[in-house]
Amino acid sequence: MKLKTVLNKIIVEPVEAEAKTASGIIIPDSAQEKPQKGKVVAVGAGKSDEPMEVKEGDTILYGKYAGTEVEVDDRTYMVMSQSDVLIIL
Amino acid sequence: MKLKTVLNKIIVEPVEAEAKTASGIIIPDSAQEKPQKGKVVAVGAGKSDEPMEVKEGDTILYGKYAGTEVEVDDRTYMVMSQSDVLIIL
Amino acid sequence: MKLKTVLNKIIVEPVEAEAKTASGIIIPDSAQEKPQKGKVVAVGAGKSDEPMEVKEGDTILYGKYAGTEVEVDDRTYMVMSQSDVLIIL
Amino acid sequence: MKLKTVLNKIIVEPVEAEAKTASGIIIPDSAQEKPQKGKVVAVGAGKSDEPMEVKEGDTILYGKYAGTEVEVDDRTYMVMSQSDVLIIL
Amino acid sequence: MKLKTVLNKIIVEPVEAEAKTASGIIIPDSAQEKPQKGKVVAVGAGKSDEPMEVKEGDTILYGKYAGTEVEVDDRTYMVMSQSDVLIIL
Amino acid sequence: MKLKTVLNKIIVEPVEAEAKTASGIIIPDSAQEKPQKGKVVAVGAGKSDEPMEVKEGDTILYGKYAGTEVEVDDRTYMVMSQSDVLIIL
Amino acid sequence: MKLKTVLNKIIVEPVEAEAKTASGIIIPDSAQEKPQKGKVVAVGAGKSDEPMEVKEGDTILYGKYAGTEVEVDDRTYMVMSQSDVLIIL
Repeated sequence: MKLKTVLNKIIVEPVEAEAKTASGIIIPDSAQEKPQKGKVVAVGAGKSDEPMEVKEGDTILYGKYAGTEVEVDDRTYMVMSQSDVLIIL
Repeated sequence: MKLKTVLNKIIVEPVEAEAKTASGIIIPDSAQEKPQKGKVVAVGAGKSDEPMEVKEGDTILYGKYAGTEVEVDDRTYMVMSQSDVLIIL
Repeated sequence: MKLKTVLNKIIVEPVEAEAKTASGIIIPDSAQEKPQKGKVVAVGAGKSDEPMEVKEGDTILYGKYAGTEVEVDDRTYMVMSQSDVLIIL
Repeated sequence: MKLKTVLNKIIVEPVEAEAKTASGIIIPDSAQEKPQKGKVVAVGAGKSDEPMEVKEGDTILYGKYAGTEVEVDDRTYMVMSQSDVLIIL
Repeated sequence: MKLKTVLNKIIVEPVEAEAKTASGIIIPDSAQEKPQKGKVVAVGAGKSDEPMEVKEGDTILYGKYAGTEVEVDDRTYMVMSQSDVLIIL
Repeated sequence: MKLKTVLNKIIVEPVEAEAKTASGIIIPDSAQEKPQKGKVVAVGAGKSDEPMEVKEGDTILYGKYAGTEVEVDDRTYMVMSQSDVLIIL
Repeated sequence: MKLKTVLNKIIVEPVEAEAKTASGIIIPDSAQEKPQKGKVVAVGAGKSDEPMEVKEGDTILYGKYAGTEVEVDDRTYMVMSQSDVLIIL
């Protein structure tokens, strides 16, 4: 199912943080920071004064408190405003 | 009776959450989360700077605290702004 | 006297809630919820970015905390913004 | 002296509330509610997105907490925004 | 020195309140209300959506908490927005 | 080095307040008010709805809490919005 | 990897503050102020009412509490709005 969203929103699939430190130690789940990196899976149509600059497929970094978590078919997505995007990698 | 709304609002009929877990256990009513999935039954005319992208009949996911509950003829509806829509399924 | 209002406001005459339950029990006044259903008796001229979609004579549902109560000739009216209208029946 | 005001403001001369109840009992001054009815004595030029709909001479009802009290030549006026007007009688 | 200001601001020279009551009693300084009447000595160029309606030389009444007190060459001025003007006398 | 700024901001070099009273008494540093007079050393390009009215070289008075203090090459500047300017002398 | 950002945001690489005082004393890390000087490594496309005036390569000063810290490939960047820029050196 292809998800859609509205206005200046984007749907982001979080990219799991590395569960190992550089030295190979496995970090238990609760010690991992909430991921802030994600892949854009859908973008809204934009607003009259804000065209969409983020595109489907972009990998982005976003703020720790940005967006709303939504579960669809056992997958977790973040829905946020385009303005919550910090960096497009 | 066909309900109508105004501006950038939409009327949503909540879709009941599944009352059974995957393993078949029935969840008592009070343990179920407030539904966040619904079917759009009416959309307003939009605003000058916000045309309606959500259409009647769309199934949507919306934020847990979005909208106002309204009862009409013993049915419960949520009235919310288009911008409260997170995902169109 | 024909009442008028300004801008995007509407004047609403509340419709009394039913004082009987389905089973015929009369509910004392203090146990009745504040009415949220009303008949539009006047609409303002709208704003440059918000034309009036609600019309005189419409029956509407509005939020419990919407509007300001005003008494004119011993009748009670609610004056509210068009955006406080949830549903047009 | 003809008073003037600016922008979307109006100058209102409050109309004294009746000091007698229907049954003829005189209400002492402190028991009377602050008047909310007034006569418009001047209107500003409006704003680019808000033309004036209220006219000089209109009798209006306004919110209890609307406007600023101003004394000119021992008369009390209320200066408020047009949007504080609830009803034009 | 001719003072100037910017945008939708105005420079006002407060007019001293009468230091005598009608019956001729002189009121000590601390018992006098802060003046709210003033003479406009300069007006800004206005804003794109707010042309200046107040003119140099106008006598105005303004809100008790409006504006910022500024001292120039031992004279006290109030700098405020045009929208702080209540009445032009 | 010529400093620049953006949008509707201005860079102001504070003018030291007189350290002597009229009668010649030197005021210790801590008793002097924070200067509110300054010389404009740079202005931004303005905003689409706010052209710059303040010019480089203007001597201005500004509010006590306006702007942000910034040190460049051991000199202290205040960066503020044009709308923080009260008076152009 | 060339970083990008959106809207009126800029990506800034902080410039380390000098770790020595003028007299040659080395300041331990914790006593150093958070850097407020940085080099612009990317600018967004701007907004309809705010073109970008800051350019890639500019050295800027920004407010102490401006922006969000983001780590990419073990380098720390600040992502902020153009309006958080105080001075372009």
